Amino acid sequence: MIQTKGYAVQDKKTDLAPWSFERREVGPHDVQFDIQFCGVCHSDLHQIKDDWGGSIFPMVPGHEIVGKVVKVGSHVKKFKVGDLAGTGCLVDSCRKCENCKEGLEQFCSNGSTGTYNALEQDGKTPTYGGYSNTIVVHEDFVLHISDKLDLAAVAPLLCAGITTYSPLRHWKVGKGHKLAVLGLGGLGHMAVKFGVAFGAEVTVLSTSPEKEADAKKLGAHKFIVTKDAEQLKSVTGYFDFILDTVSAPHDLNLYLSLLRVNGVHICVGVPPTPYEIHAFSLIGGRKSLAGSLIGGLPETQEMLDYCAEHDIVSDIEMIDIKNVHEAYDRMIKGDVRYRFVIDMATL
Amino acid sequence: MIQTKGYAVQDKKTDLAPWSFERREVGPHDVQFDIQFCGVCHSDLHQIKDDWGGSIFPMVPGHEIVGKVVKVGSHVKKFKVGDLAGTGCLVDSCRKCENCKEGLEQFCSNGSTGTYNALEQDGKTPTYGGYSNTIVVHEDFVLHISDKLDLAAVAPLLCAGITTYSPLRHWKVGKGHKLAVLGLGGLGHMAVKFGVAFGAEVTVLSTSPEKEADAKKLGAHKFIVTKDAEQLKSVTGYFDFILDTVSAPHDLNLYLSLLRVNGVHICVGVPPTPYEIHAFSLIGGRKSLAGSLIGGLPETQEMLDYCAEHDIVSDIEMIDIKNVHEAYDRMIKGDVRYRFVIDMATL
Repeated sequence: MIQTKGYAVQDKKTDLAPWSFERREVGPHDVQFDIQFCGVCHSDLHQIKDDWGGSIFPMVPGHEIVGKVVKVGSHVKKFKVGDLAGTGCLVDSCRKCENCKEGLEQFCSNGSTGTYNALEQDGKTPTYGGYSNTIVVHEDFVLHISDKLDLAAVAPLLCAGITTYSPLRHWKVGKGHKLAVLGLGGLGHMAVKFGVAFGAEVTVLSTSPEKEADAKKLGAHKFIVTKDAEQLKSVTGYFDFILDTVSAPHDLNLYLSLLRVNGVHICVGVPPTPYEIHAFSLIGGRKSLAGSLIGGLPETQEMLDYCAEHDIVSDIEMIDIKNVHEAYDRMIKGDVRYRFVIDMATL
Repeated sequence: MIQTKGYAVQDKKTDLAPWSFERREVGPHDVQFDIQFCGVCHSDLHQIKDDWGGSIFPMVPGHEIVGKVVKVGSHVKKFKVGDLAGTGCLVDSCRKCENCKEGLEQFCSNGSTGTYNALEQDGKTPTYGGYSNTIVVHEDFVLHISDKLDLAAVAPLLCAGITTYSPLRHWKVGKGHKLAVLGLGGLGHMAVKFGVAFGAEVTVLSTSPEKEADAKKLGAHKFIVTKDAEQLKSVTGYFDFILDTVSAPHDLNLYLSLLRVNGVHICVGVPPTPYEIHAFSLIGGRKSLAGSLIGGLPETQEMLDYCAEHDIVSDIEMIDIKNVHEAYDRMIKGDVRYRFVIDMATL
């Protein structure tokens, strides 16, 4: 077993604190890489607090993980020692079902294995995430990272990046489309970058007027303060797509009214309470409300390659791991531009 | 003006009763046709009772209208006296907006004109529907009806038919697809006929076990009693599409779980209360919840032509107009197979 240092919560009432644990030895198909940076995702906090139920403790959070390969198994073909490597939200899946075969491991019919707060495919071994110094992952769930980009700023691509890239690709958002990005946070700022890169006209819909300058700097063409009824009215029936990154409760009927005929509202955030949708909000314009969840492994690699080619990374604030609670507090307030990344050298 | 006989409600507290009113003279682009049959749509009842608010009284309901042309305006090119003709839910629209130009008059940006309980494009003249002996409609909103089909059974195609045909065409439902039809009523029975005709595997999801034989007779391949948890479980993650014709409150999260990855749940009914949707129901499988509203004029004609070619009509029960209240009572109980049609000769 590999002795591993990390930060963990012991149960949902305790804070993150240093914890030593073991990871499996590097198997024939495994890659071990030392973690240099790990992004802080809003879902880390949801899971620590058991907001969605079923949390497994002790929990080592973190699923935006990048670092350098230190050991590879005897059968590993895709990686060698010294390579840059990354792992996102998944570390395994059944690999046999229809969805896995199509590269949609996030929808594995038999249940994919999350990077943390999950059980391995054996159904009993807990997984531990990236708030730690090293990790062992089957090579099929390890991604190649370009050395052209700032490694720390690549980390959030593994979740915030693919979560926004995937739906924009799936719905073929691009030239000639009017895309609204609802919420300008970790996910939203990546959605703006991708939307602009894909050629869409991008409008940020935000409750915070003070984010307008940032939105424009990120490349957004328009900015609408959603609390301003007049501004909102000016975009009634305007958008082809809304990418909704908000995980707080909000009235979707309002946003559906901003879509044109055949428009699609895509949710990637998970509010704690159900959406309330009036049938007429969908029927009056043949509109769709859709959801999207991260992306499969092939698409995640495609996204990383696209980012390397187009010089796209996340805007980050680097923190020491001892300051992670302060980072959570600021994240809750929306006071982060736009993703905290832990410098794992501070562990 | 044209003296017209009909059945109307004077306000939402009164019953339908004989009423005489006037229709406009036949203008240069108008077609007048004598109404032989008019279907009874569930939405007639909603509007009479002002369930959706904003009802206009007196109200002559009816938007599944067929009959024979008795007069045409000087500029009318598409119809001549003696032709069979029909009118559905719309009698006008702005004809200038993007949606009208695309033949999606039901989504007219400036507001289409409903066949009854609506105002003409002048914004002040009320429209009166098909529970009457004759009607005057602009030729662009009159449809050609084949003489190959039973005329009375054609009437419901104008609403129940196009409402189910349109989404199945829009989402290209056909060979290789597994389609569920939720609810076997006026709309549902047409959805089954079209789904089968388009080559899909069709499953009826119904609360009423006694409808199984009918469903099979209509061509459905499978029948699932939705109150039977075991039966329902057997189709988890099974369907590509669900066409939801139910206008009573129901839990969509349950039905979304029956969709496979990328599945689409299409609502054509309008329940009185909002749907409650958990974000995970959509996100876990990149699913979509969509709405669809009747169909535009070109597609309605296409549907009628398709029905003539493939010998598709509605299953109907003919009634005298004096029995319309009894018909409503039975419709509420789901006791109609599958559409009441008024024989307007009984007026």
